[in-house]
Amino acid sequence: MAPTTPLSVAILGASGYTGVELLRLLLGHPQVRVKVLTGERQAGNDIRALFPALSGFDLPILCKIEDVDFSAVDVVFCCLPHATSQQVIAGLPASCVVIDLSADFRLKDIAVYEQWYGVHQAPALQPQAVYGLTEHARDAVRTARLIANPGCYPTSSLLPLMPLLVKKLIRPEGIIIDAKSGVSGAGRSLKESSLAAEVQEGFQAYGIGKHRHLPEIEQGCSLALGAPVRLTFTPHLLPINRGILSTIYVQGAAEQVHQALVGQYAHEPFVQVLPFGQTPSTRNVRGSNVCQIGVSPGCVPDQVIITSAIDNLVKGASGQAVQNMNVRFGFDETLALPRIGMFP
Amino acid sequence: MAPTTPLSVAILGASGYTGVELLRLLLGHPQVRVKVLTGERQAGNDIRALFPALSGFDLPILCKIEDVDFSAVDVVFCCLPHATSQQVIAGLPASCVVIDLSADFRLKDIAVYEQWYGVHQAPALQPQAVYGLTEHARDAVRTARLIANPGCYPTSSLLPLMPLLVKKLIRPEGIIIDAKSGVSGAGRSLKESSLAAEVQEGFQAYGIGKHRHLPEIEQGCSLALGAPVRLTFTPHLLPINRGILSTIYVQGAAEQVHQALVGQYAHEPFVQVLPFGQTPSTRNVRGSNVCQIGVSPGCVPDQVIITSAIDNLVKGASGQAVQNMNVRFGFDETLALPRIGMFP
Amino acid sequence: MAPTTPLSVAILGASGYTGVELLRLLLGHPQVRVKVLTGERQAGNDIRALFPALSGFDLPILCKIEDVDFSAVDVVFCCLPHATSQQVIAGLPASCVVIDLSADFRLKDIAVYEQWYGVHQAPALQPQAVYGLTEHARDAVRTARLIANPGCYPTSSLLPLMPLLVKKLIRPEGIIIDAKSGVSGAGRSLKESSLAAEVQEGFQAYGIGKHRHLPEIEQGCSLALGAPVRLTFTPHLLPINRGILSTIYVQGAAEQVHQALVGQYAHEPFVQVLPFGQTPSTRNVRGSNVCQIGVSPGCVPDQVIITSAIDNLVKGASGQAVQNMNVRFGFDETLALPRIGMFP
Amino acid sequence: MAPTTPLSVAILGASGYTGVELLRLLLGHPQVRVKVLTGERQAGNDIRALFPALSGFDLPILCKIEDVDFSAVDVVFCCLPHATSQQVIAGLPASCVVIDLSADFRLKDIAVYEQWYGVHQAPALQPQAVYGLTEHARDAVRTARLIANPGCYPTSSLLPLMPLLVKKLIRPEGIIIDAKSGVSGAGRSLKESSLAAEVQEGFQAYGIGKHRHLPEIEQGCSLALGAPVRLTFTPHLLPINRGILSTIYVQGAAEQVHQALVGQYAHEPFVQVLPFGQTPSTRNVRGSNVCQIGVSPGCVPDQVIITSAIDNLVKGASGQAVQNMNVRFGFDETLALPRIGMFP
Repeated sequence: MAPTTPLSVAILGASGYTGVELLRLLLGHPQVRVKVLTGERQAGNDIRALFPALSGFDLPILCKIEDVDFSAVDVVFCCLPHATSQQVIAGLPASCVVIDLSADFRLKDIAVYEQWYGVHQAPALQPQAVYGLTEHARDAVRTARLIANPGCYPTSSLLPLMPLLVKKLIRPEGIIIDAKSGVSGAGRSLKESSLAAEVQEGFQAYGIGKHRHLPEIEQGCSLALGAPVRLTFTPHLLPINRGILSTIYVQGAAEQVHQALVGQYAHEPFVQVLPFGQTPSTRNVRGSNVCQIGVSPGCVPDQVIITSAIDNLVKGASGQAVQNMNVRFGFDETLALPRIGMFP
Repeated sequence: MAPTTPLSVAILGASGYTGVELLRLLLGHPQVRVKVLTGERQAGNDIRALFPALSGFDLPILCKIEDVDFSAVDVVFCCLPHATSQQVIAGLPASCVVIDLSADFRLKDIAVYEQWYGVHQAPALQPQAVYGLTEHARDAVRTARLIANPGCYPTSSLLPLMPLLVKKLIRPEGIIIDAKSGVSGAGRSLKESSLAAEVQEGFQAYGIGKHRHLPEIEQGCSLALGAPVRLTFTPHLLPINRGILSTIYVQGAAEQVHQALVGQYAHEPFVQVLPFGQTPSTRNVRGSNVCQIGVSPGCVPDQVIITSAIDNLVKGASGQAVQNMNVRFGFDETLALPRIGMFP
Repeated sequence: MAPTTPLSVAILGASGYTGVELLRLLLGHPQVRVKVLTGERQAGNDIRALFPALSGFDLPILCKIEDVDFSAVDVVFCCLPHATSQQVIAGLPASCVVIDLSADFRLKDIAVYEQWYGVHQAPALQPQAVYGLTEHARDAVRTARLIANPGCYPTSSLLPLMPLLVKKLIRPEGIIIDAKSGVSGAGRSLKESSLAAEVQEGFQAYGIGKHRHLPEIEQGCSLALGAPVRLTFTPHLLPINRGILSTIYVQGAAEQVHQALVGQYAHEPFVQVLPFGQTPSTRNVRGSNVCQIGVSPGCVPDQVIITSAIDNLVKGASGQAVQNMNVRFGFDETLALPRIGMFP
Repeated sequence: MAPTTPLSVAILGASGYTGVELLRLLLGHPQVRVKVLTGERQAGNDIRALFPALSGFDLPILCKIEDVDFSAVDVVFCCLPHATSQQVIAGLPASCVVIDLSADFRLKDIAVYEQWYGVHQAPALQPQAVYGLTEHARDAVRTARLIANPGCYPTSSLLPLMPLLVKKLIRPEGIIIDAKSGVSGAGRSLKESSLAAEVQEGFQAYGIGKHRHLPEIEQGCSLALGAPVRLTFTPHLLPINRGILSTIYVQGAAEQVHQALVGQYAHEPFVQVLPFGQTPSTRNVRGSNVCQIGVSPGCVPDQVIITSAIDNLVKGASGQAVQNMNVRFGFDETLALPRIGMFP
């Protein structure tokens, strides 16, 4: 039933940051071969000219999606922008397992999707899609044909929040997520706000009340609780390349919350709950697929402050995509995925 | 009654970051002369060897406090650690106006001080001390002999919060301040957590529920409201040199909150309320004495998200100290104080 | 003969980094009023929306150059790209003093200009242009109508090299300038190599043997020596916003070189020669118009290693432009120009 | 003859940056088990409290060296300071293979060592030591009992220089190495010059003519040439965590130099010579054991400019140490060593 290994892998949209990060991970994976790399504007070019970090490897030349023979491809990682992803994925043969790093299949309610992203062009595919927050979706991932890889902010928030809402250990009202992300989260597109001279030695909030990861986080929380959750999410831009820290304010009993998370994740290779009162730093998960979670008592009664750190390009994107592939094909879940952050 | 200008100024503890920042500002001030610089461990040394940025100026040699003749000094800026500051200030002649950048005289209630900092050794001086959040303390500053210069986090938080609490435009319960500071706020003392290799490309919360600026913020809010306020304050360490951004979650009506702040600060040279919905960045106040404030509607009903940016070493320390001196001696309040952030 | 002060100033191309830096400096200058700001693509917009650091000031709305009445303008700062600058400056009335921050009038030999930059469209103006390395051009600047403001790398290199070549204290052969610049030197244009995620935590050389500042440095050295000088110049990109450090390898006697530079610059407000053997850091000149120079003995006989630090946007661009204006109009040369770097 | 795998490994001085980097690499190595971690001041503590990046692993408690039973240890990685290393290594049983990351056994001439480092206390061991620049020392490493792991700056310089000197393709006189290192190279010791507020947004040279890596580089060049080489080496401090870029000025024929290096390293897994005229960036080797080398024609006749990038903690320290262990014990040389830099 499983394809013969090594799997043949295609990366669509390989010239962005999630694409090159997938390559960094997959080139160390013993069970896959990267057979196809697409990049519409870069078609015909050697990806090593774009990303000299890959110089030591022989890699396929970048091509256009229309020139790919997908019949020989087992797994497609789709790193295209939203909207484009829908169209491309709708055209892929059923024989391909698709892991989509865009937002296109993350929101189960098409109406909500269209409110935040615009018209959806492949709504018929949505019901097949599995939301791949791996630790909470293994059974579904194992048989999925289309995996919607979670967003970076949602991953950092949902890993601590979902089990607490399932167990009703925190109040669903008044949750506040004050989140901070490194600049690679903005992608490789050219805009002034991503220029080094405007990012270094600076810090600010952005998109208050308007960030598209808000409905995704609310969806995850609502499913966990079994009832609608409305919450507050404020993203900020950090002058670092990689890393998200979410500081989450909830109401509950701090030690109970800590124990629940320790219990939930005790045997997980990629989620580490720190000792009570300790706080994670993005520097300790840099480059790894790890989420580190801290739980502290708040400043006022019944308040709990949860802090959650991931590398936005690994557990927040390409790493979790590989983790989902490992689960989907029955490999050791940790294959090719760093478990130690690169510090310093 | 005012001393003949130029004023003679002493900086105690000149070898730290607030000391050198005072020098940067005061050496451009037409009405002062820096006559005394102290540094206990560095006594006998030329401060230009410590801070080559000062190379173009003739400056007093660093000396010990015990060797200073304070009778010829009009203004003392005290940049010593807390506890030490109390003792030194208690020994200064009444003829010196003292601007204390430590925490020693900020908390009006000695019991609260002692709960957070340890035994106070000069409690008799406390009643004289004026808490110098300049925009809200000018009358008292004009006649003060001892000015307690506010902390950096409190300055960034109290400027937006105090007028709103005075006018009862926000609920006093449930205020959350998620604050982020550059590393110069940790001072020049040697500790691993301040090493470049542990700060760059990283981000984390620290001191949750235990930071000494919490009671200072609560004091300012309580005085503004006329009743005790308990709130939540979570500091984080940013990989930048200068800058604080406080993201403040309150309950109220966003447009009303914005209008009140616009009205409050319309004629202030150093407080700028941005157009509704815009968010300030630390990069735009870098090196200046400016506080920029943004007001946005939150994600849930009746929530307002206020963001407030300062340079922690200027408006959050040495700049506000100079501003207080300007007020105290009847100078133009903006003398020697940058009003434009250094961007990029 | 001099215009009535305050001078009326126009900044052409105000929406780039040198434009906003000119504003930071000129808004603190007691003898000028900024009357005109141009920005072709931004015409009609408020510059404070582009640069919120300027929020505290009333400023002219950005307009197109064709809409400016230059008859009421005393000084034009031209921050346009090369080639465009030529055309615009050729059309300005003779009553305007022009300070050009582009490269268009820096190279005296039009053939050399055209070899590096392409066809020159206003060669007739070139003979009038004064190369405004202020410390070495005051007499000419005082009467100039068109001042070619030096490039950032050339400023950092020529300040130490020119006096040594004039006095024949170093060999003109084999000079190597290994230079490193912060990213603001690349301007605000959008390119992948200026994205924060590609600059932070990285370092590399670029444009080896091809950088347009090479002929400008060679011209200055040749004029100083009175004979052609060919040298080596290697620029690198630093992950900082501001600052250039040039490490210069020459042959000569180190102590003699040091003494000559000390003597040359003893009375200069903006050039500081450090004690023998000390090395400057960009952090100590950040935000100031200062050049700090260090002289050390090399590793092999007769080698001298000179290190020279400036802020590329101040002494390397907008600050030196204001310094030239001060000289041109007989103001105190230091007016509105910071002499202390912002450290930390 | 080889010990039974997995090898038992001890890391002495595990609480520094090279120690934690060894752990990051070795915990992914299938043929070793980390059995001993020492840290004199931290004895009794859990290394995961020092380095939370290691949280996912069970690791030995830190102990004192005197409490280690070295009879059960196959390989000792020594990350102690110089001088201390000598004494400790002199006391290890002959059954341990020792890979020393300090400078103590790098200089073959004890007199030169003592000139730069002070009295050597284990000179009798020096003749056994193999200088482990792996690509140029495999035969000796395979049978070595004591491997002196090269310094970071020497690794980045000697990889390009040695083959060129062996083949006499460059002149041995006048070589200039202008080198720039990230701050992790300064280690975890507490000093003001390593504080984030003094490193970020700054850049400077240090230790001109006095850096201890100069004699090490000269030794490597001299051995390659077969005659004494004296050269120039100027280190600088970069505001990044990891990475060294060496810009090397030599005399020769650029294309010939390029071809020789391409030929030399064509089959090496960790040395990549870029296409002619391209320049490497530290960002492309970050976290990997790779050295990338660029060759460009210089600005004057017969000049060649070589740029060489490594991660100072990997190929410049712990990675090369593991590479040497792999060679020594006959493992695949690339085991546990990243070959793709972490970009962005």
